Amino acid sequence: MSLDFFHLDDLYTEEEKLIRESVRDFVNNEILPIIESHYHAGTFPMDLVPKMAEMGLFGIKTSTEFGGSGANYTSYGLAMQELERGDSAVRSFASVQNSLVMFPIEAYASEEMKKKFLPKLADGTFIGCFGLTEPDFGSNPGGMITNAVKTDSGYLLNGAKMWITNGTLADVAVVWAKLDGKITGFLVEKGTKGFSAPEMKGKHSLRASVTSELIFEDCEIPEENRLNINGLKGPLSCLSQARFGIAYGALGAAMAVYDSSVDYSKSRIQFGKPIASFQLVQEKLVWMMSEISKGQLAAYHVGRLFENGKARPQHISFIKRNNVDIAIQSARLARDIHGANGILDEYPIMRHAANLESVRTYEGTHDIHTLILGEDITGIAAFS
Amino acid sequence: MSLDFFHLDDLYTEEEKLIRESVRDFVNNEILPIIESHYHAGTFPMDLVPKMAEMGLFGIKTSTEFGGSGANYTSYGLAMQELERGDSAVRSFASVQNSLVMFPIEAYASEEMKKKFLPKLADGTFIGCFGLTEPDFGSNPGGMITNAVKTDSGYLLNGAKMWITNGTLADVAVVWAKLDGKITGFLVEKGTKGFSAPEMKGKHSLRASVTSELIFEDCEIPEENRLNINGLKGPLSCLSQARFGIAYGALGAAMAVYDSSVDYSKSRIQFGKPIASFQLVQEKLVWMMSEISKGQLAAYHVGRLFENGKARPQHISFIKRNNVDIAIQSARLARDIHGANGILDEYPIMRHAANLESVRTYEGTHDIHTLILGEDITGIAAFS
Amino acid sequence: MSLDFFHLDDLYTEEEKLIRESVRDFVNNEILPIIESHYHAGTFPMDLVPKMAEMGLFGIKTSTEFGGSGANYTSYGLAMQELERGDSAVRSFASVQNSLVMFPIEAYASEEMKKKFLPKLADGTFIGCFGLTEPDFGSNPGGMITNAVKTDSGYLLNGAKMWITNGTLADVAVVWAKLDGKITGFLVEKGTKGFSAPEMKGKHSLRASVTSELIFEDCEIPEENRLNINGLKGPLSCLSQARFGIAYGALGAAMAVYDSSVDYSKSRIQFGKPIASFQLVQEKLVWMMSEISKGQLAAYHVGRLFENGKARPQHISFIKRNNVDIAIQSARLARDIHGANGILDEYPIMRHAANLESVRTYEGTHDIHTLILGEDITGIAAFS
Amino acid sequence: MSLDFFHLDDLYTEEEKLIRESVRDFVNNEILPIIESHYHAGTFPMDLVPKMAEMGLFGIKTSTEFGGSGANYTSYGLAMQELERGDSAVRSFASVQNSLVMFPIEAYASEEMKKKFLPKLADGTFIGCFGLTEPDFGSNPGGMITNAVKTDSGYLLNGAKMWITNGTLADVAVVWAKLDGKITGFLVEKGTKGFSAPEMKGKHSLRASVTSELIFEDCEIPEENRLNINGLKGPLSCLSQARFGIAYGALGAAMAVYDSSVDYSKSRIQFGKPIASFQLVQEKLVWMMSEISKGQLAAYHVGRLFENGKARPQHISFIKRNNVDIAIQSARLARDIHGANGILDEYPIMRHAANLESVRTYEGTHDIHTLILGEDITGIAAFS
Repeated sequence: MSLDFFHLDDLYTEEEKLIRESVRDFVNNEILPIIESHYHAGTFPMDLVPKMAEMGLFGIKTSTEFGGSGANYTSYGLAMQELERGDSAVRSFASVQNSLVMFPIEAYASEEMKKKFLPKLADGTFIGCFGLTEPDFGSNPGGMITNAVKTDSGYLLNGAKMWITNGTLADVAVVWAKLDGKITGFLVEKGTKGFSAPEMKGKHSLRASVTSELIFEDCEIPEENRLNINGLKGPLSCLSQARFGIAYGALGAAMAVYDSSVDYSKSRIQFGKPIASFQLVQEKLVWMMSEISKGQLAAYHVGRLFENGKARPQHISFIKRNNVDIAIQSARLARDIHGANGILDEYPIMRHAANLESVRTYEGTHDIHTLILGEDITGIAAFS
Repeated sequence: MSLDFFHLDDLYTEEEKLIRESVRDFVNNEILPIIESHYHAGTFPMDLVPKMAEMGLFGIKTSTEFGGSGANYTSYGLAMQELERGDSAVRSFASVQNSLVMFPIEAYASEEMKKKFLPKLADGTFIGCFGLTEPDFGSNPGGMITNAVKTDSGYLLNGAKMWITNGTLADVAVVWAKLDGKITGFLVEKGTKGFSAPEMKGKHSLRASVTSELIFEDCEIPEENRLNINGLKGPLSCLSQARFGIAYGALGAAMAVYDSSVDYSKSRIQFGKPIASFQLVQEKLVWMMSEISKGQLAAYHVGRLFENGKARPQHISFIKRNNVDIAIQSARLARDIHGANGILDEYPIMRHAANLESVRTYEGTHDIHTLILGEDITGIAAFS
Repeated sequence: MSLDFFHLDDLYTEEEKLIRESVRDFVNNEILPIIESHYHAGTFPMDLVPKMAEMGLFGIKTSTEFGGSGANYTSYGLAMQELERGDSAVRSFASVQNSLVMFPIEAYASEEMKKKFLPKLADGTFIGCFGLTEPDFGSNPGGMITNAVKTDSGYLLNGAKMWITNGTLADVAVVWAKLDGKITGFLVEKGTKGFSAPEMKGKHSLRASVTSELIFEDCEIPEENRLNINGLKGPLSCLSQARFGIAYGALGAAMAVYDSSVDYSKSRIQFGKPIASFQLVQEKLVWMMSEISKGQLAAYHVGRLFENGKARPQHISFIKRNNVDIAIQSARLARDIHGANGILDEYPIMRHAANLESVRTYEGTHDIHTLILGEDITGIAAFS
Repeated sequence: MSLDFFHLDDLYTEEEKLIRESVRDFVNNEILPIIESHYHAGTFPMDLVPKMAEMGLFGIKTSTEFGGSGANYTSYGLAMQELERGDSAVRSFASVQNSLVMFPIEAYASEEMKKKFLPKLADGTFIGCFGLTEPDFGSNPGGMITNAVKTDSGYLLNGAKMWITNGTLADVAVVWAKLDGKITGFLVEKGTKGFSAPEMKGKHSLRASVTSELIFEDCEIPEENRLNINGLKGPLSCLSQARFGIAYGALGAAMAVYDSSVDYSKSRIQFGKPIASFQLVQEKLVWMMSEISKGQLAAYHVGRLFENGKARPQHISFIKRNNVDIAIQSARLARDIHGANGILDEYPIMRHAANLESVRTYEGTHDIHTLILGEDITGIAAFS
């Protein structure tokens, strides 16, 4: 059983709960036992890929026509929640595959490309990645330098991307570049001449995830690999999908450290009684429970807004910003509750705490989402 | 229009929204223009009483049989929200009448007493009050000293209550006392021998509310004025009702200071531009908007839980604690945004800030609700 | 005895401690007994003026030649600390007289003017005020509109000032205006044609202080009343003096609410024991003690830096910003510790809390000082 | 140059500054280039030991008679500051050697033992460790189970210690056990029969430190290895020494992340300008600068109190609690400022953040020090 202070289980459908429970079992059985060793080694557990595919975790919202599950936003969110209860890296893998690769291919690629890529992405034969961020353009992707030039047979791509989850592993990369000054998307296939994707090393976070650079040097892209979308709204539409999943995912990480804190505080004895009986410990548990419960309400509502066609990007900024923030603060408090034991890999605290530092930064930093909401309130942009 | 980031208006019924809008208009037209002068003078605006009665603000959930409106929890909550958008003192007046007087009379009094009191309380002819807190027993009402002794014709009451909203004004007091060691309720009518209710002076908060002591010196209570309820669950059931209204009410205060902050920041020019364009101002507005929006979600859900018979006292502790806390912090931030102007009575900031200090303390302090939730999480009481 | 965790008393000189103790006695005997009634009435206790003069509280740092005490910065700071332990309004009165009126007259006026004004300001015969802030120029005084034009016999002053402590009471106003586009100071005497100083009403803060507008309509100022200083550095030099006193003063307010909290928590019994024995109460007391103690260290050091000629304006920004902030947060926590009693005027909590809202805003808001320090760190101004 | 807002360099002696500068150079040249790889590998850089010894970093306060430097508290603090600017693990190594091993041997061992151990500990031939904490007695060491029984030739030791820095490396362990119910100290030499010290694995913090269990199974200790001290005051006196160094050390970690943040924010361009020009970034930098500066003042003062014989254990609790707390919060803010780059080992942010989680917990957790100070204020212990 998991934290459900507000009885949200009465609002989720049976199907949604079924998906959540099956992913939860998968995480308990397949991810939790092995994740710390991958975290330490800095490797992604590749043998999970076929299993995740089999569970339908790739293409959750993708049409069944292309091998997806055709499920709703909420189902997607709950699946991400459970994956991130396991580890943010595993959830990131699924976020990229679902929201940053399969979504734009389904939304913006030709029928031919959809048929070529989506089924293989759905069954885990192919891994995808998403190339937007550049070394000097993190919070301001519109300033990107990566450039496409029209040629007779297609496009010539030059530039570099950074912080690309799964880049080194990917069979296909959704890459955003400027063509005649306008942002456009391209599908860049592994092995394309002039394309390389070296792994970035030295991470203290998401260590069970592969993070890469993408380098394009006169990389030739066929005409048919261009996506049918122009402008920043292309990548932003993908980010909206992914951020929604992150908002649910962060709840999973938060619930993991909360659950561990409740258990630990009830069994750890100091001064002759469980530390759960101390006011200073209860205060921390109550903070975590309260903030997670409000985050659950907010994520639930935004999922329903999505499903009813009423969600705005600002709703997603709200829940991404809020839920990652309360997750990271929960991990901090959980560390205090676990005392010295909290630094050991027997408990999931430090791993989640470190992972969430990346999650807080990627797909719009905390401060960038603050300013998105600030603009929504005031009508005035204060980014620069 | 008011803050509704999550489109909750799509979830409220038309009837609920109608009640909210009518109270909102009432507050705008009748309360806001006069409340600062009452606050300054330390008086309750008595001429509002018949108007509030006419609007159905007394007995909102009380059965129509006894003159009430028979509305649901959510309607009650929204009415309290709007009243407290005006002033916490006016909302407190209504909270007491509805939840602490009419509720226990309807729930625990004889049919005769219901007929005697409820219609007059509903039409504003009678004002009620609720005597639970004692000078030395605030957070721990079970320790009360006020004592009832059975006599031939009824009961002899001795003791003193403190911090009683409307005590001096009240025609009938719902008073809790120990009879043979068990807490029981009594209806004490104005003018009963041995009963006095002097006003408490020197308040820096809820100055537009009358706060009183209740003093019982061999006060004779007829048998029929005893409520049919034993134990702490009697007063606690009333507090659950009232706290729910407070949780919605605090949102009203928070929305008042937020709305004023948005308006002010967009019109106040410094360094050649609206202060709404500064990141440090946007950060404050976003904090307020986010926390109020989550508080709205939580209050909405708990109202529905109540209506579906699933609300627990801990749900109410959650929203009372959370919503008052974010309201008081919002008032603090609003003060910063309003600069020097924020200390003037042209703006509602300081009045709400001061009022909320009482609201934070009464009906369970912030810390007491923390420990109620801590016990809910851990199974261990840490009050003492 | 008062909070001195770090044994700073070993570092203060005997003379400094003597001044502090005598002001402390004065506050205990003369201010605390009457201040709540003045706060309520919205009046300054004028009968304190001769007593304060007699104690040497006007012109503490002013040369003895002109009737001052010729004491050092630290002595001045400690005197302000003790006055604000009483009430921020009384401290504000002294701040204005010392730092904003007597300081600029001594620093920038002619010998004749010094002789004319300083002895009377020192003995309390004259009250002064300081006119810098304008309705539309709070955080950005350099944008002021008030204007002086040279005439044959002197200057013609036009414009308006706002938020002027003691304006209505003042015999002489130090007024800053633009002359040929450059900021210059003028001594404007009470009764000067074209000069009026109506009181501002409706304050919820510093209610025991007189706050005024200053209005200049073709107001004729004699040549000799012009100060010998040009540019924003004139008023800023005064503000540096005053802010230093505010930083010490805020410690006085913080110590007042802390001392009351310690006393209250040790005597207030709930659940059968003093509330001081609860972890949630101790946590609040420790927060207050820690922050006040660090604020004391910082104020002490900056005083010594001043005395050694090493203080920079940023040092003063630091301690003004920090100490007012921790004072206001201490008042908030003190309110929780005092429970319902904390809203009564028997305790100094709400009065200090409300006063500190003004103190936080005037002489550079919290955020403005943040940005002053931010510029100091980064070399980049981010005000606009 | 390093952060010195309050010109504390004017207060440190030339000798103190010389020690600080030499350790700073050592850290820059010897530790920073290699520490991330040791952190990743989970190893302590053993080749630093002779270099640290040569620099006089072992036995800083120990009498020169026994090979120490005979320096004062402040010098010791500044050395720890600089070491922890490098890495908390290296500082921990030095803390243990100095305060937890050499201090108690000098204070409580026989002349013979002093001569036997101190010179070798000073020159780095010997490494020491300190065994107090047990698996079930972290915050409450007085409850320890480890037990000594008197035998003809000495003592028989049984029990287990946990979380022992340098345990596996140590040539001599200062071990606290109960003898006839009273806590006493023993020097347990490496290789003693019945004594083993396996390393603890799986740490996410202080990874460049060796952390061990100590296991005593009928371990025979000669009579002369018993320390001449009884009761909890023995180990507590050592902890007071060590905590003082930690308080200075945490400033080093905080200064490292602050310095990196200032540099990064001035060079990182987003939206066409350095991020140091954004208000939200300046606010974070100002927070860090302010809190570090206050922490510096507090550490400086407590050092001087120590040197003047006026320091109380509560002073040390204050600075340990405060400085570690602000360091950990600074690391969190530094992470935000560094954006995605902040998770890389090119920057010291994540390593310090993770290390400080141990530092916050060991030698008295944050909450335990809160309650120590709470007892100091109220006279009431609230630990249990």
